[in-house]
Amino acid sequence: MERVASPVDYTEDELALVRFGVDGLAPAVVQDAGDGTVLMLGYMDREALRRTLQSGRSWFWSRSRSEYWCKGETSGDRQWVRAVRYDCDGDALLVIVDQDGKGACHTGARSCFYRSFGAGGPGSAAGGTRAHE
Amino acid sequence: MERVASPVDYTEDELALVRFGVDGLAPAVVQDAGDGTVLMLGYMDREALRRTLQSGRSWFWSRSRSEYWCKGETSGDRQWVRAVRYDCDGDALLVIVDQDGKGACHTGARSCFYRSFGAGGPGSAAGGTRAHE
Repeated sequence: MERVASPVDYTEDELALVRFGVDGLAPAVVQDAGDGTVLMLGYMDREALRRTLQSGRSWFWSRSRSEYWCKGETSGDRQWVRAVRYDCDGDALLVIVDQDGKGACHTGARSCFYRSFGAGGPGSAAGGTRAHE
Repeated sequence: MERVASPVDYTEDELALVRFGVDGLAPAVVQDAGDGTVLMLGYMDREALRRTLQSGRSWFWSRSRSEYWCKGETSGDRQWVRAVRYDCDGDALLVIVDQDGKGACHTGARSCFYRSFGAGGPGSAAGGTRAHE
């Protein structure tokens, strides 16, 4: 199924409610729209957030490369944004997406959070990233 | 049902895989073990992470108050830790919990992420924080 980008409606008043840190960034949790898996955590500045809302694709600021990146442009593992939420303090974002390809992680795992403390114990199964597995 | 704290097994080698930022902190996403709702985002330093793993309760570092806090000690909205994951880069944490009380947010909402961009649009319903609502 070919997915399409859907811009997210927003107002400048809403955008002004988001408080970015001293480095200009806010953490953005990316969650799968289908089953709730937490796929990854990236960072957005105001421009990346605006691009995300306007394009319906997830944009981040790379702290290591000091550049904007649109998730999946290189790998093909695109994220199609279905909603963007912000928390009570306005300093964290939650991006609900349909995830293309094999997943969000550059390692090939579906979720970047594929490792648990206590290897071998409950909840530590590699690849099992659903909360209720 | 009375919930009990279950310490999370971990090794010092695992703990050493977590990379904290220049401020000594890593973002910790808290997800409901039952239905996958993203409840909140807090910050942990190495000591807060260690306390979380050892106690089976969620401990954070408050950036505004510059002190450790154990979620729910004051409000009663305790979090019982069921698993702690870390991401591919080792610089973000995912804490899977059973949430006591009315929820995680000091506003009374179940999730701190109770607001969406595009009020009135899909996914913006207050209180609706499930990815697949």
